[in-house]
Parts: sequence; C-alpha cells; structure tokens
Amino acid sequence: MKEPLEKAGVLIEALPYIRSFSGKTVVIKYGGAAMVEESLKESFAQDIVLLNFIGIRPIVVHGGGPRISKTMERMGKKPTFIDGQRFTDKETMEIVEMVLGGLINKEIVAYINSHGGKAIGLTGKDGALLQAKKKIVRKMSDESGTGAPEIIDLGLVGEVEHVDPKVLSALMDSGFIPVIAPVGVGPHGETFNINADYVASAVASAVGAEKLLLLTDSPGILDKQGGLLSSLNRKRINALVKDGTITGGMMPKVDASLKAIDGGVSKVHIVDGRVPHCLLLEVFTKEGIGTEIIGQ
Amino acid sequence: MKEPLEKAGVLIEALPYIRSFSGKTVVIKYGGAAMVEESLKESFAQDIVLLNFIGIRPIVVHGGGPRISKTMERMGKKPTFIDGQRFTDKETMEIVEMVLGGLINKEIVAYINSHGGKAIGLTGKDGALLQAKKKIVRKMSDESGTGAPEIIDLGLVGEVEHVDPKVLSALMDSGFIPVIAPVGVGPHGETFNINADYVASAVASAVGAEKLLLLTDSPGILDKQGGLLSSLNRKRINALVKDGTITGGMMPKVDASLKAIDGGVSKVHIVDGRVPHCLLLEVFTKEGIGTEIIGQ
Amino acid sequence: MKEPLEKAGVLIEALPYIRSFSGKTVVIKYGGAAMVEESLKESFAQDIVLLNFIGIRPIVVHGGGPRISKTMERMGKKPTFIDGQRFTDKETMEIVEMVLGGLINKEIVAYINSHGGKAIGLTGKDGALLQAKKKIVRKMSDESGTGAPEIIDLGLVGEVEHVDPKVLSALMDSGFIPVIAPVGVGPHGETFNINADYVASAVASAVGAEKLLLLTDSPGILDKQGGLLSSLNRKRINALVKDGTITGGMMPKVDASLKAIDGGVSKVHIVDGRVPHCLLLEVFTKEGIGTEIIGQ
Amino acid sequence: MKEPLEKAGVLIEALPYIRSFSGKTVVIKYGGAAMVEESLKESFAQDIVLLNFIGIRPIVVHGGGPRISKTMERMGKKPTFIDGQRFTDKETMEIVEMVLGGLINKEIVAYINSHGGKAIGLTGKDGALLQAKKKIVRKMSDESGTGAPEIIDLGLVGEVEHVDPKVLSALMDSGFIPVIAPVGVGPHGETFNINADYVASAVASAVGAEKLLLLTDSPGILDKQGGLLSSLNRKRINALVKDGTITGGMMPKVDASLKAIDGGVSKVHIVDGRVPHCLLLEVFTKEGIGTEIIGQ
Amino acid sequence: MKEPLEKAGVLIEALPYIRSFSGKTVVIKYGGAAMVEESLKESFAQDIVLLNFIGIRPIVVHGGGPRISKTMERMGKKPTFIDGQRFTDKETMEIVEMVLGGLINKEIVAYINSHGGKAIGLTGKDGALLQAKKKIVRKMSDESGTGAPEIIDLGLVGEVEHVDPKVLSALMDSGFIPVIAPVGVGPHGETFNINADYVASAVASAVGAEKLLLLTDSPGILDKQGGLLSSLNRKRINALVKDGTITGGMMPKVDASLKAIDGGVSKVHIVDGRVPHCLLLEVFTKEGIGTEIIGQ
Amino acid sequence: MKEPLEKAGVLIEALPYIRSFSGKTVVIKYGGAAMVEESLKESFAQDIVLLNFIGIRPIVVHGGGPRISKTMERMGKKPTFIDGQRFTDKETMEIVEMVLGGLINKEIVAYINSHGGKAIGLTGKDGALLQAKKKIVRKMSDESGTGAPEIIDLGLVGEVEHVDPKVLSALMDSGFIPVIAPVGVGPHGETFNINADYVASAVASAVGAEKLLLLTDSPGILDKQGGLLSSLNRKRINALVKDGTITGGMMPKVDASLKAIDGGVSKVHIVDGRVPHCLLLEVFTKEGIGTEIIGQ
Repeated sequence: MKEPLEKAGVLIEALPYIRSFSGKTVVIKYGGAAMVEESLKESFAQDIVLLNFIGIRPIVVHGGGPRISKTMERMGKKPTFIDGQRFTDKETMEIVEMVLGGLINKEIVAYINSHGGKAIGLTGKDGALLQAKKKIVRKMSDESGTGAPEIIDLGLVGEVEHVDPKVLSALMDSGFIPVIAPVGVGPHGETFNINADYVASAVASAVGAEKLLLLTDSPGILDKQGGLLSSLNRKRINALVKDGTITGGMMPKVDASLKAIDGGVSKVHIVDGRVPHCLLLEVFTKEGIGTEIIGQ
Repeated sequence: MKEPLEKAGVLIEALPYIRSFSGKTVVIKYGGAAMVEESLKESFAQDIVLLNFIGIRPIVVHGGGPRISKTMERMGKKPTFIDGQRFTDKETMEIVEMVLGGLINKEIVAYINSHGGKAIGLTGKDGALLQAKKKIVRKMSDESGTGAPEIIDLGLVGEVEHVDPKVLSALMDSGFIPVIAPVGVGPHGETFNINADYVASAVASAVGAEKLLLLTDSPGILDKQGGLLSSLNRKRINALVKDGTITGGMMPKVDASLKAIDGGVSKVHIVDGRVPHCLLLEVFTKEGIGTEIIGQ
Repeated sequence: MKEPLEKAGVLIEALPYIRSFSGKTVVIKYGGAAMVEESLKESFAQDIVLLNFIGIRPIVVHGGGPRISKTMERMGKKPTFIDGQRFTDKETMEIVEMVLGGLINKEIVAYINSHGGKAIGLTGKDGALLQAKKKIVRKMSDESGTGAPEIIDLGLVGEVEHVDPKVLSALMDSGFIPVIAPVGVGPHGETFNINADYVASAVASAVGAEKLLLLTDSPGILDKQGGLLSSLNRKRINALVKDGTITGGMMPKVDASLKAIDGGVSKVHIVDGRVPHCLLLEVFTKEGIGTEIIGQ
Repeated sequence: MKEPLEKAGVLIEALPYIRSFSGKTVVIKYGGAAMVEESLKESFAQDIVLLNFIGIRPIVVHGGGPRISKTMERMGKKPTFIDGQRFTDKETMEIVEMVLGGLINKEIVAYINSHGGKAIGLTGKDGALLQAKKKIVRKMSDESGTGAPEIIDLGLVGEVEHVDPKVLSALMDSGFIPVIAPVGVGPHGETFNINADYVASAVASAVGAEKLLLLTDSPGILDKQGGLLSSLNRKRINALVKDGTITGGMMPKVDASLKAIDGGVSKVHIVDGRVPHCLLLEVFTKEGIGTEIIGQ
Repeated sequence: MKEPLEKAGVLIEALPYIRSFSGKTVVIKYGGAAMVEESLKESFAQDIVLLNFIGIRPIVVHGGGPRISKTMERMGKKPTFIDGQRFTDKETMEIVEMVLGGLINKEIVAYINSHGGKAIGLTGKDGALLQAKKKIVRKMSDESGTGAPEIIDLGLVGEVEHVDPKVLSALMDSGFIPVIAPVGVGPHGETFNINADYVASAVASAVGAEKLLLLTDSPGILDKQGGLLSSLNRKRINALVKDGTITGGMMPKVDASLKAIDGGVSKVHIVDGRVPHCLLLEVFTKEGIGTEIIGQ
Repeated sequence: MKEPLEKAGVLIEALPYIRSFSGKTVVIKYGGAAMVEESLKESFAQDIVLLNFIGIRPIVVHGGGPRISKTMERMGKKPTFIDGQRFTDKETMEIVEMVLGGLINKEIVAYINSHGGKAIGLTGKDGALLQAKKKIVRKMSDESGTGAPEIIDLGLVGEVEHVDPKVLSALMDSGFIPVIAPVGVGPHGETFNINADYVASAVASAVGAEKLLLLTDSPGILDKQGGLLSSLNRKRINALVKDGTITGGMMPKVDASLKAIDGGVSKVHIVDGRVPHCLLLEVFTKEGIGTEIIGQ
C-alpha cells in the first residue's frame, strides 16, 4: 500500500498549483530537443493534455529548426544565415510555410490528440491571427558605433504587428487547444517567417496569459560560472546583458520575455525542454525548474 | 532531478482517469474512522477539493456516529439501539439533527473550504432535498420464520421517498460542493433520521452519478478467510448473503449499493476509509482499492 | 359579491408596491417573539413565500435566543453574560452552532418550504459566506471616561470582516430563499458567534439590498413618552442617543441600521415582529409599520 | 391595526393561487361592458398588470362591438348583420381593421401601460400571427333539414387556420403583455374579420395556455331557471345545447371553449365582465366566479 | 452565360457594403409617393426584407398623408392646416390614430411579410415607445421680428420627449422588423400626432443607428439651379437655410437630420422615394443617391 | 439611373434564394482550374465571403493536384499512379501533407480573408476531424470477372471512417469559415491521403448540409453527344454508368454524390469551376449551372 499512498501524496502536493492556475491561460513556446526526441515529444503531449484537463487553457507556439533546412536541402536549396537568422527568399518562405504549417504543426496536433486532447493547428494566416510586417534589422557597421547603421535584408523575415485572438478564444471556449506555427500574413497578403519566441510573447500578451513558458536546450539562464539563475527581473537582466553574461541565442528569448512582461504577462519561465515533463515540473512544483523572469 | 520526475510520472499516470471522469458526478458516503481521525479528515478534504478542481463534481453524504451518543449522554439521555439501529424519539431526533446538521456538517464544510474548495452544507430539509417517510422494520418473530413478522418501532427513523436534486444542480453548476446530512423531512413536516448509506444511494441515483463510493472501516467485502473480494456482481452478492459471508454492518451497505445500481449508477465501491487519500486511490489508480460492485 | 370585491381591492392596493420592489433584494433579520410563537412563525413563513412569488428576492438572517440557553442548561452549562453579551467559550460555541445551524435554521427552512417556498439554510461557514474576526469590546473604566478603556473578553464572539455573496446569488438566481444563521468563520478556521443584526446589515450591504427589515419585540423606536418615531435620519438618531432616548437593546439595532445605510442600503425598518404579517404590512402599505431609518 | 391585518390576510389567501399559476400563460378574451364602462376598463388594466407582476403571463384578445358600427355610421355606411354576424365587405373590413387595430387595441395598451404594465398591441398581420381563411357558413334551408344546406356569404369574415406564436414568446420572454386585435391575414394577403372568442381559443391552444377566460355580459352559463351553472363538462354541455338551455350568443363562446379544451387548455372560464376585478376574483379565489368548462 | 455573370458581378460589387453594414441598425422614414404607388410599395418591401436577410437591422417609421384627409372627409370632417401643419383636435386625432396605426401600419407590415420578412407594427403607445408632449409652435408676428412671438395652437400635435427602445431590441433580437406609426403618448395618457421625420430621427438616436434614411418626393436637397447637392454638413446647411435655398417642406427634414446627427447617428440620407429600390441603391452603391448629411 | 436600377433588380432576384438558404450549411469541394487560375481564385474567394455574409454557412474542402507532383519532382521523387490514383508511400505522404495542409490550404485561407472573410484552415488531424483507414482497392483480374479480385496496394491512400464535426460547429458558430485539406488520421496515428470529393461528401453528411457543390473542369455530367444533363436521380445515374456515359474521372464524383444523398444531403451539384462566380450562379439563379443530383 505504500506506493499508492506516495502517488496520492504527489497529487495532493499539486493541489495548490492546480487551484491557482484554474481557468488561466498559459502560452508555451515549444522547440529544440523537446520537439525532436521521441520520448520528449510524448511527455510534452501528455503534459499539455493534463494541463488542459485540470482546467488550464494551454496555447502552444512551435518553432521549426532542423527540419526546414533538411527539406530545403532535399529540394536543392542551400540555407543561408545572416547573423544567425535565416535569409528567407520567396522560395524559402514557401518551404518554411509547408514544413511548419503542413508537417510540424500537424504532427504536434496529432501527438496531443493521441493522448486525448483536442488540438487544432493554426498558422498566422488562419483568422488573420498573426498580422505581420517585414523586420528591419539594423547593425552597427563598426565597433565604435559612430557610423550609420547598416540595414540587413533578411527577405521575408517578419515581426508581429497585431494579434487577433478571436479564433483562439472561440477554440478554447469549446475545449480545443490551439497549436500555432509562426507564420504571419502581411498587409498585402505576403507570407512572413517570424521568430517563434516573439510570436509566443505577442500571443501571450494578446490573450492576457498568466504565464509564458519558453522551452530551450539549456537549464535556463546561467551565470558566468554556469550556475543557474533561478529568478531575474528587468534591471538584473539589463546588467547581465551589459556585462556579457547573457549573449547569443539567449538574447532573443530574454527580449521576447521582457516584451511579454510589458504586455501584461505576470511571469515568464525559461525552461529546459530536455527534461521530461518539464511543463508539469514548472507549473506544479514549488521550486519550478529553469529561470523565472518577472518585471521588478 | 529524479524525484520531481517521479512526481510528474504520477500525475501522468492519473491522466486517463482524469479524462474519463471529467464532468461526471461522484457521490461519496463519508463516515467511520475517516470522519474521526484528524489526519484522515485533512486527507479527505484534500481529495474532495482535488477531484473538484480536475473537473469532477463530488457530492458528500455524511453519517454521524459517536458524536450523537456523546451529546445525548451530556444531555442526560441514554441512547437506545434496537437490532443495531438507533431508536429515535422526538427528543433524540432533535439532538441528532443538531449534531448532524449543526456540528458535523459544518465541520466538514469548513475543512473542505480551508483547502480551497467551496462547500455548502445541507440537510434534507433544505430545498426539500430528502423527502422521507417512517421506516417500517419487520422482523421474523421466531427462528423458523413461520409466524407473522413483528413490526419494530424505531420512532423517527425514516427512509427516502423522493430526492429533489434541484438545489444540488444549482450549487454544482456554480462550482459549489454539496455536503449532505442524512436528515429527511416528512409529508407533515416531521424530521426523520435516515441511514446515510441509503441517502447516498438515493442521491446518486437522483443525480445520475457515475460512481458511488461508500467509505467503511474495513478493506472492503471480505470472503470467509478474510481475503478481499475485489469485484462482485448482484448474483454473486446474493450467494454471499445466503451463505453468510456478508452479514451485520455490511448488509445495509450492500443493499444500498444494489439500490444505486438499480437506480442507474454504473459502479459502487466499498472503500477503506482508514486509508489516507482513499478517494484518490480509488478514482485514479488502475486497481482501485476495496470492493467494486457492478450490476452483472 | 361584496366581500370578494373587497379582497380584489386589497390586491390592487398592493400593486404599486409590488411594482416598485419587483426584482429587488430585501434582507430580513428574524428574531424575538416572531420566532417563538406558533402563529407568528406561520405568518412569517407565508409572508416570505409571498414576497418571493411576487418577484422580490428575500434573504432571512435569524438569531437564536432562549433556545441556546435552554440547551446549555440541559447540558449542565451555565450561560454567562457580560454587559448583555453572551460570553462564548469553545464549548458554548459548539452549542451555539448546533442550536443555530442545526435546529433553528432548519426549522425556519422547513416552515418556509411547507408554504411552497424553496428555502436553503446556511451558516457563515457555507461557501465562506461570513468571514469573521474576534470582536474587541472596549469599556470605559470609570464614569468620567478619562482612564484607559478596559478590554472585555467575550471569548468567541466575533464580528463580520467580509461577506462573500456568491452562494447567495447562485441560490437566488435559481429561485431559492437563503436563510442564514449568524455563525462566522475565522482566518484559522475558528467558529465565531456573531450578533444577527450586524450579520443582516453586512449581508444587506454585500448584496446591494433595497431594504433591511429588523424585527423586534417593540413597536419600533419610541420617544421618551413611549410614542412611535416613524421616520429618523442619522442626525436625529445621534441626538436621540445623546439625550438617552435610544438605549439598551435598541442600541445595536440602530448601529447596525446606520452601518447598512453606509453600505448603500436605501432604507432600514425596525418593525414589530409581534404583529402578524408585519413583513407584508411594512412592504405593501403606504404607512408601513414601525420606524424607518434613512441616511438624511 | 385591525384593518391592515385584514389586508394582509387577503394577500395570504391569494398565495396558493399565485403559487400554482406562477410562470403559466393565461389568455383573456376581453369585450362587452368591461370594454365600455370607464371604471371597468381601469379595473381590467389593473388586474392584467397585477397578474403580470406576480409571475403570470397574460395575453389579451379583444373584440370590437359598438364602436365599429358607430364609425361605419359616421362614414355613411350601414352595418348589415346576417344571422347575428356582421357582413363584411371590403370597405367594412377597412373600417373594422382601423377601429380594432388603430383605436381599441391601442386604447387597451395605453390603459395597461398607465398602470405600470408593458403592453404591446398586435393584429393578426403582425408577424403573421393569425393566418386565416374565409369562413364558410352553412344553414339548413328548411326546418326539416332535409334539403341541401344554403351557404351564407359573410364577405371577409374569416376563421383561424394557423397561429404563429413566435412574436408572442419573444414579447412575453422580455416581459411584455401582448394585446391582440382579431384581424387575420389570408394566404393572398386578404384581411379577415374574425370572431374574437375563436381567436382567443386558437391563441390559447397555440401557446399552451393554462387557462382561457372569456369575459361576457352575463354571470356565466345559466340553467333554464336563470341559475348559474358553475362547472360543466363536454357531455353536459352537449346535453344543454340539445335541450335548448344554451343558445344564441352563448353558442360561439361554448364552441370556442370546447375547441380550446381540444387544443390542450386545461380549463376555460366564462366570466362576468361587468364585475369589477373579475380576473382577480376568478384566478385568486377558491370559488371563482362564472362557469368553468373542463373536458370531462 | 454572359447575363448570369453580370448578375454575379452585381452581387460581388455589393459585398463591401454588405460587410460594412453587417449587424448595424438602419432607420428608414417611409412616406410620400413610395407609400402610394403599388410598384414602389412592392419594391420598398423587397428592399427591407433583403436588408434584413443580409444582416442589417432595419426599422421603418412611416407617415400618413393623403389617406388621413380622405378618411376625415368621408367622416364629414374638414382637414385644417395652419402653416402647413395639420390642426389636430380630439376627433381628428382619433381618425389619425385609426388610419396610421390601424390601416397604413398594418398594410406595410403585410407587404413586408408577404415577401418573407417578419414585420411587427407598433405605435408610440406600444411599450410606451414614444413618450411625447404638446408641441409649442412660435411664430414671429411680423416681418421685422421685433414683436413678441405668437404661439400657434395646433391641438394634439406633439413632439418626442423620450424614446424607450426596449421593445425594439426585443423584437430585432428575435429577427422581427419594427414598423412604427408616429403616434405618441403623453404623461396623462393623451394621444399625440407627431411628425414622422422627427420620430425617425429620435428613434435613430435612441437605438444608436448607423444611418437614417429619409424618403422624399424629390431627388434630394437641390441648389437654386435645381442641381442635386450630394453631400452637406451642418455649416453648409445653415448657409443654405439663410440664403433661402432650403425652404418649405425640406426644412423639417433638414432639422430632423441635424437632430439625428446630434444624437450620434453617423450619416443621414435624404433619398428620392420615387426611385424603385432606392434603399438598395443608397446602401449598396458607391455613389448612393440623394443628399448625404454629415456633422462636419 | 438605368444601370443602378438594373443592379438593384439583380439583388432583388436573389432574395428568394437568400431567404431559403439563410442559416443553412453548404459544403463546397474546391479544385481543378478554379484553384489554379488567378482570376478564378479571386472570384471563388469573393463568392465564399458573400455567401457567408448573407447568412449561409460555407465549408470548403479542397484538393491538391499538380502542385503535389511538382513538389515531389523538385525533391527528386517520381510520382507513381496506379489506375489513376496516386501511390502514396510514407515519403510521398509527407510531401502531400506538407503541400495540402501547409501551402494550398493556407493560400485559400488567405484569399478568403483578404476579401473580408474569417477562414480557418484545417486538416483531418485537427480536432480529429477526419478519422480514416487504409483504402482497399479491388480490381477484377480479367475481363470476364470470374477470377478472384486482385487487391491493389495504394500505400497510404485512405478513406473516411468517421467525421467529428465539433470543431466545425465551434468555428462556424463564431462566424469562421472552415477550409479543409483532405488528410485523414488513422487509429494508430497514421496519416492518410484521401480523395477530396469523398471528404466533402462525408463532411456534408456529418454536418447535415443543405447542399454539396463539387467543382469540376467540365460543364457537368454530359450525355454521349456532349450535351449537359441538368438533373439526374440515382436510377438514371445507374443507367448512365451501365451504358458507359459516365466514366473515368466523373465516376468518383458521382459515387461521392450518391453517398452524400444517402447521408441526408438534399441536393448535390456538379458545377463548372471554370466559370467565374460559379457558386453564386448555382446558389442564386433559378436554373443554376451544371448537373443537379437528387435521390429520386
């Protein structure tokens, strides 16, 4: 009898968290290893379904990654990156859209549904969910920063102008779980490739989410010694950027997090997607895992 | 990290059960040790709140027991039992009603509310919930059973004639958890003391409950060697009554169970209330605990 | 034919009052003789049901009185009063709760239901309706009032901190009539005995009641010659307290009345509960009966 | 204090009737003296408003009578009657429609509204409420009844083919009181003059009314000695028609009553409209007034 | 195949207008030739039904005109006009009410219903829709304007004090089309004859209409050369009144238009009712027809 | 003025059709030339938006065609067809899914939205909309038909087992237009390529559609002389299949049509998608275009 009792104990420990998130919306940016490894894909789908059944309204925003480049290569097209961002010409955009909206999005939907959820896949074109414009990237042309900034053309890389959350509410009110591919639509019908972290951040603000969870392939934000920083506010983050602790791939995540905070989201969590059931651990345990970002 | 992962695993194991009970009503007869021992009272309240938050609609029906006799004695009144049933004269009925509806009922309500639930205590008088009539008890006057049956007068002991579930729906639809004391009201306004197992059974039928759980102070229904019988149907129960395996205090529980089955409840469980979190163990584990009673 | 016509005339006279209270909530503090004498109990229940059927939403708050002391005595416990308030130790509180919530409350419920109403009995524990704290009573230690006030310990006598009216709305929206026993719950789960006039006042404010009716065993507030004062405002009341016209048991009623006015209730009426159908007379006749208290 | 108490007593006597009609629909055919005498018009309007405020859903169907003939005469047109029914040519129909729908209907509406009701006047054209066809009247051409029946042409006198009650529900659900003029519309847009008793009967059936009240200028159905017959069923009515007790103007009322009974209305009452507040007397007193007609 | 394609083209051209008016309320003052000529009556009814089916909420307010005078004459009463307004004594008012509310109103209702709409006719008495008071008309007694103004008594000619739009919402929410006769009710139950343009204006303001369309028997507001002025604002209108371009029968229309603009209506259109399908042309074509009046 | 009047006439002609389809669901299979030529894509999107605004609930099911093969070729994969059906191995299925769900589906969505509609793209995986199984194709191995049939393996070509229309209702009730790619999901999570005509037929049955429209690249079903057969019933179709009039690509369309009729759809129309605005012509003109298929 001991083991079942321990199980019951675990459920009871979760009670205060279930209580406080009941009826709230949580946006999850899904990507990296969690989207590649079979057992992590299963555990992610289970977590989403569980969150949904206990009264939380989850929204998933996913990225794309290696599968886009792989498909491009099969179609004889060489991926080009400028400063770490994919240069997206029209042909590339078509492949991005096909892979994100046609393959990856529907695979996530099918995983969730196979565990008893009712997921619906969307791209930013559906219901004009993600209205976008071309992203203008400026780069200082020299170290001194005194010259005019160089404008880098990334092609059809976009940024979110406006989120129309009506389709999300209609679906969630009927018990469906929205799964969003980060493809936006421009004012003249152009298709834009958008960074999924920023999409998740904009969606979280637009729906008034309680939490935004960003899955990464690291334990969270680390200090220079590699130790996990478990809670950060805006001021501390600015200092860490300035002193070079936060750099590289973590930069857009941190930026997207602060945008969500500005947009009214209470807390953002940068969470290690390589840990099975990282969503449950984050939502249902006291310590959580990863780095929590708050306003002040 | 290992321990949290195990915790997540427990939540995930519960998922299929959460899914299949989502939106269903479960009636729980609460009594015995579970209503006496402090830690069991806590664990019961937690279980009820957890069930409620994950989308189940629980209804609690409680008994009274030792506290009634204790209060009677303090008021200089000696409890009388006939064939194991409390003889209830008018003065006794007043004490029963006071203790059940005024003390025990509100204590259970307060426990549930202190864990974040929203319980409302009711007796059968509220909203004319339990309409009752005097219970007529017949007893064979000799062993041979050939004489006319003797009618035993138990005073204001009653049985349920009709359940009006409107107040239960009104409360549950607004997120409240009904807690019912087994006091009924007669056609001329009489107050009746009713066996709580039968009340739970009648309520379960009236609301179309998915499950009825009867808490007892034994592991379930036992065979002659003291082994637990984990699943029984009507036919098998009849045989066990006939051969004397089921006797004494288990008789009314078994009778109430079969009445609930007749009333459309799919399954009844006789569960050991002395096991902490017995509700969660019954609802969320594959084997369950105790004895399951089904129609066929 | 003459008599029926007179009857019709009476109904027609009531029409303007029915019209102006349609859909409004009226809180009634029920106590004193009206809760003791059989014929008054009947007429009270009829009045409540009639108010309810013609579109008014009544809420009843009742006191306890003689029955508590009687039960205490039967249990060998001597009631103690300090300055007219019952000293409430833990054992007394248990008896108070039992008698108020288990006996009196359910008796009122049954009376109302026997006339076709659908009443539901509640104490302040149900749905955390009455959240309370210990009442601190200060008394000037000498006539001159220059010394430090003496703090009188009344044990578990409490006062209302917060009313959570959700259960009241849920019930009234489904056509039920709430009947409330003045027992509150403290932040640590303590049970408090609260003056029913103050509970009625706090509930009236919390639900935005149109009227608060306080039943007493006198014709209303009387002047020094014993004449009825039919309408008073705050200023006039203050003068009457100062000059010693209002004293004794009328003091808390007047204080509770002014609190209700502060809480947004338009009018409070102190009404003679010894007059049969005093509620109908107050609500449906031009002059009303008793003393009306308004803000200005 | 005695008089107010008597008033309260009258209200309380009405309680069982209020209770049993709560939420039910009652159709009233209004006509005769009650529609002519000033004080009766007032008392009728008060009754309707009172019924409405205490939770009954009244529908008024009115006739026309003397005012139509008066207007015809002013317009230099001589009213013609064949066997007691108004011959209605096109010009007459226009006058009938104008007087019924434009004058009488709106006057009734205004009376009800002036007492605090919210009445809406309709003719059978509004929302295609009363779909009608030409009424074919057959008359035996000789006493022996052996010849072929003669068909009498009454012009635009019609009978109800179908009632579309949607506008009635829409209005009553929003708290409005429908007042209907007995003008129907034919399949080709023709306007038909219909007997108001039959309209009331058809409307009562279509809305599933609890009661149909037909106001007349007599105490009810009388026996040959002029004594009131207070309750009649179909069989007894047939006998009374056969033996000539029921004749003349009472015939269509009795026929309309039986049609309503066939259409599912529980009871029809033929009531003396000359008695002030006859509606209240009928609905709220035990004996009622006039003649009650039931199926069996 | 060419012709059907052209038809489809017309429907497609209407799409942007259908889109922008979807769910909006449009008030139409109906009168003049459009209410007299058979084919225009048909085309008006078709337009109203079409507007309704494509998601617009139309409200019709109609006038009376020649038919009132004709009926007066038939009743031997000579119409009297003072400064172009009908002097309305009590007898005249009765005829006005009868003709407007009983004949014309129901004829419009029947036309609309015969094309598949669900119209309901109302006068200002129904649901106390149009609460009115006596209109005080002042006239300068001489050209110089220096003497005291003369007050002209028009009898029961009234003006709108307050519109209670509840019955309109109740009907429109259930899919009905309100058709309103310009008869108002005074504080003491008086019946008032009101100018239909002003009624339409007041109703449009009260319901927050998107547009008010006033049908006339001219192409719109004309300049001194008889050319159509297709768009005017308040300032320009004031100038045109001052220089005598706008005079006579156009004055009250212009005044009613500006009142509607003040009441929050975005645009008013003075439209030629002699043009078949003028409503569709105004709502669904780019240029519209007639004169558009805006605030600035 | 003549031209606008003609336009109004066209709108009025459409009124009876608008009326009779108001609130009804129409399923449209979209494919062929209409999905390729730019101007036809525009006219299709306009038609869908117009249908939606005038109160019809359209659902679009689209095919894929040339674009799939083109993409396969770019990825170095040769399309294989067996008896006119695409052999679909796992790699092909991935390309099919990507092109259908990621490119074509979202392009249609964007077209509709650019004309003011609110379209949402779905594949059969979303909300488990299209539950499918492997399609078993049997072929007689010789002309005489006496041998055992040969089973042809088409790989992941599937057929619809069950349609779960919940997501369609949720979206349509909120004003969205579902656009469905014919990709199904198997019991073990397999992805299936399904013929779009059959998907449209199954969806039409599942939602109780009023009409199913199948767009083709021919004027409809033709007789042997190439003349259009404008209306056919089941019996006549069977004859035409037997005598070889209906063959080839028209066979599955005819079969899907009869399945829809069996599933409760009233009428199916095979319509020439090469005609601009063919949807409007079919729905809003008397003759319609193409071939109508009915049950009897």
